[in-house]
Amino acid sequence: MRAYNFCAGPAALPTPVLERAQQELADWHGRGLSIMEMSHRSSDYVAVAHKAETDLRTLLNIPDNYKVLFLQGGASLQFSAIPLNLLGKNARADYVHTGIWSEKALKEAQRYGDINVIEAGRTIDGKFAIAPQSEWQLSDNAAYLHYVDNETIGGLQFDFIPESNAPLVADFSSSILSAPLDVSKFGIIYAGAQKNIGPAGLTIVIVREDLLDQARSDIPSILKYSDQAKNDSMVNTPATFAWYLSGLVFEWLLEQGGVAAIQQVNLQKARLLYDYIDQSDFYANPIALQNRSIMNVPFTLKDTNLEKIFLKEAEGVGLLNLAGHRSVGGMRASIYNAVPLEGVQALVAFMQEFAKKHG
Amino acid sequence: MRAYNFCAGPAALPTPVLERAQQELADWHGRGLSIMEMSHRSSDYVAVAHKAETDLRTLLNIPDNYKVLFLQGGASLQFSAIPLNLLGKNARADYVHTGIWSEKALKEAQRYGDINVIEAGRTIDGKFAIAPQSEWQLSDNAAYLHYVDNETIGGLQFDFIPESNAPLVADFSSSILSAPLDVSKFGIIYAGAQKNIGPAGLTIVIVREDLLDQARSDIPSILKYSDQAKNDSMVNTPATFAWYLSGLVFEWLLEQGGVAAIQQVNLQKARLLYDYIDQSDFYANPIALQNRSIMNVPFTLKDTNLEKIFLKEAEGVGLLNLAGHRSVGGMRASIYNAVPLEGVQALVAFMQEFAKKHG
Repeated sequence: MRAYNFCAGPAALPTPVLERAQQELADWHGRGLSIMEMSHRSSDYVAVAHKAETDLRTLLNIPDNYKVLFLQGGASLQFSAIPLNLLGKNARADYVHTGIWSEKALKEAQRYGDINVIEAGRTIDGKFAIAPQSEWQLSDNAAYLHYVDNETIGGLQFDFIPESNAPLVADFSSSILSAPLDVSKFGIIYAGAQKNIGPAGLTIVIVREDLLDQARSDIPSILKYSDQAKNDSMVNTPATFAWYLSGLVFEWLLEQGGVAAIQQVNLQKARLLYDYIDQSDFYANPIALQNRSIMNVPFTLKDTNLEKIFLKEAEGVGLLNLAGHRSVGGMRASIYNAVPLEGVQALVAFMQEFAKKHG
Repeated sequence: MRAYNFCAGPAALPTPVLERAQQELADWHGRGLSIMEMSHRSSDYVAVAHKAETDLRTLLNIPDNYKVLFLQGGASLQFSAIPLNLLGKNARADYVHTGIWSEKALKEAQRYGDINVIEAGRTIDGKFAIAPQSEWQLSDNAAYLHYVDNETIGGLQFDFIPESNAPLVADFSSSILSAPLDVSKFGIIYAGAQKNIGPAGLTIVIVREDLLDQARSDIPSILKYSDQAKNDSMVNTPATFAWYLSGLVFEWLLEQGGVAAIQQVNLQKARLLYDYIDQSDFYANPIALQNRSIMNVPFTLKDTNLEKIFLKEAEGVGLLNLAGHRSVGGMRASIYNAVPLEGVQALVAFMQEFAKKHG
C-alpha cells in the first residue's frame, strides 16, 4: 500500500506514473529492452526526450526564444554554472538572500565575481517575510539578478516577480510547475527535478537564447549552456531514465488539466493546512501570510519534546517524512503536486487528534 | 521478451536486476513509497547507498585509503573535475592519446594547465595498437598521468597498466568490473555508470585519500572531491535511483562469483566473436591482437553497402544496437557483463548466416 509522502526531496511521485514506469521497466513498448538500456541517440529514446521537452513547454508556455536543457548535477551545480556562464571575470551580480538555499547560491557565485548581496529576509510582527523590492539596493551594472523563488527549508516564498533591468535568474527547484509562471520575465529559470518534476539526478534549465553565448573560457564543456543547447542536452550521455520519468510526470500533469488546474488543488491543500495551524494553539508556522510557501509548510509543536512522538505516530498511520530539515528542526510537510488533497486531509486529521491527545 | 542488446551505452543491464527493480518500484520493501521518493538522508536510503559502496569495494578489492564517490555528470564532467582537483594553476599533466575518448579528456584538461600529449596510438602491420611505454615521453614534473583503459569507440584496450611516478589517473568507463584490477596502482579510477555498472546519470570516482585536498580555489563545490568525500557523496542530492540500481548490479555480480568469475565469461564471449571474425573473409576487426577490447568489438563488413541490411536483419532476430559509433561507422558489438554468452553465440550464428547469404 502506498503511503502519503511529505518528503522535501527526493519527493512523492504520482502513483499512476510509477505504475506505468513499473509496467514497462524491463521491456519498453515491446522493444525487448528497458528504457534504461537504450542509447540516448536511438530514435526511440530521442522521441521520448523530445516529447518530454514539448510537454514541459506546453505546461509552462515557454516562449520559442528559450532553450530547455535537461542536465545533471542538481541546482547546486547550477549555483556555479550560472556565474561561469553569465559572469565575465570579476564582473558583478546581485543576489537576493532570503534563506539557506539563496545563501548557498551566492556563496558559490562569490568564487567567480563581485557579488552584491541583498539581505531581503526580515521579521515583521514576529513572522519572517521578504522585504519589498523598493527597499533593495540593486547594482547599476549587474550581469544578472538572482533569487530563489521558494526557500524549501524555510518555507518562504516570493509573492512577486522582481523587476530588473539585468536578466532575472531564479531557482524554482521547489515551486516549478506548482502554478502558472510568466517565463518571458526571466533570463534563466532552473530547478532540480527531485521535488516537483521527477527523480533526483536531473536538472532543468530554461535559458533565454541571448544568454547562451557569454560563458567564461575556463568553463567545463558539460556546464556550458551553448554547448548543451547545440547538442540537445546530449554533449554527453544524459540521465536518460530520470528524463524519461519526468516526461511521464509531465504527461500526468497535462491529464490533470495542466499547471493552472494543479495550482487550484495546491492552493486548496495549502489553505487547509495553514488554516488549521493558525487556529490551533498547539502548532505554529513562523512565516508571514504573504510569503508562505504553497509547497513546503514548516510548523512547530508547542512542546518540542513531543516531536519524536509526533513523527513516530504519523509514520504509524502512513504519513511519512514530516521531520523538518536537519539544519532547522521542527516539522515540515512538503505538499508538492504529487501529494493528493486526501494526503493533506489525512495529515490535518492526524494533527487534530495528536493535539487533542497531547495538548 | 527481452532481446540481446549490444548497445555501447546506455547498455544492457542484467535481467534479474531489472525484474527486482520492477517488482519493488512503487513500494520499496513495504515502506509505502518508491526508492525514488525517499530522502537520500533517510536511514533506509543511506543503508542502500552504503551497501552499494561496500559491495563495490568487495568486488574491486578497494584498499581502505581510497574513497569511493557516487557523482553526477558522466566521465565527461570528470574530464574537467580531474584537472580542477589535481592541477594547480598552470601546472603540467601527461595525457596518453589512444582514441576519441582520451582526446576529449585531454582537450578539456588543456583549459586548466600545460598538457603533455603522448601520442600512443600506432599502426603495426595494418592494425591499430598501443605503443609500449618505453616509447612514451613522460614529463619530469607531471601532476598526474592520465589514460583511458578502454577506448569504447575504437575498441582498443590497454594490455598493461602504465608505470608512473606521478599518480595514475584512468578512465575505466567501459571496462570497470569486467576483470580484476589492482586499484592500489592508481591515484584515481573513474567510470560513467551506463556501460558496466548501472543506469546513465551516475559516475563512480575511486580516489586515493592523499589526492583529495589539492583542488584549485575556483572549483565548483559539487566537483570537489574533498567536499564530496566528507559528505559521503551527498554535498547535494545524488542520483538516488541510479545509485540504488547500481547496487543491485553489484549484488548480481557477487552472485555470479565476482569479477574474476565474470572475467572468464567475458573472455569466452570475446574469444568466440574475435575468432569467428578472424577466420572469416567477410568481416574484419582493425585492432592488433594484444590491444583488442574485451568489451567493445568493432567490425566491418567486406561490402559497406550491406551495413544497413545487416542492422535491419539483426534487429529482426532480436540482436539490437550493433551500429558502430556515428563518428566511425561500421559495426560494433558491446559485450559488457550483462550480455550473456548466449547473446554472443546468437550474434555469431547470425553473422555466419548473413555472410553465407551475402558473401
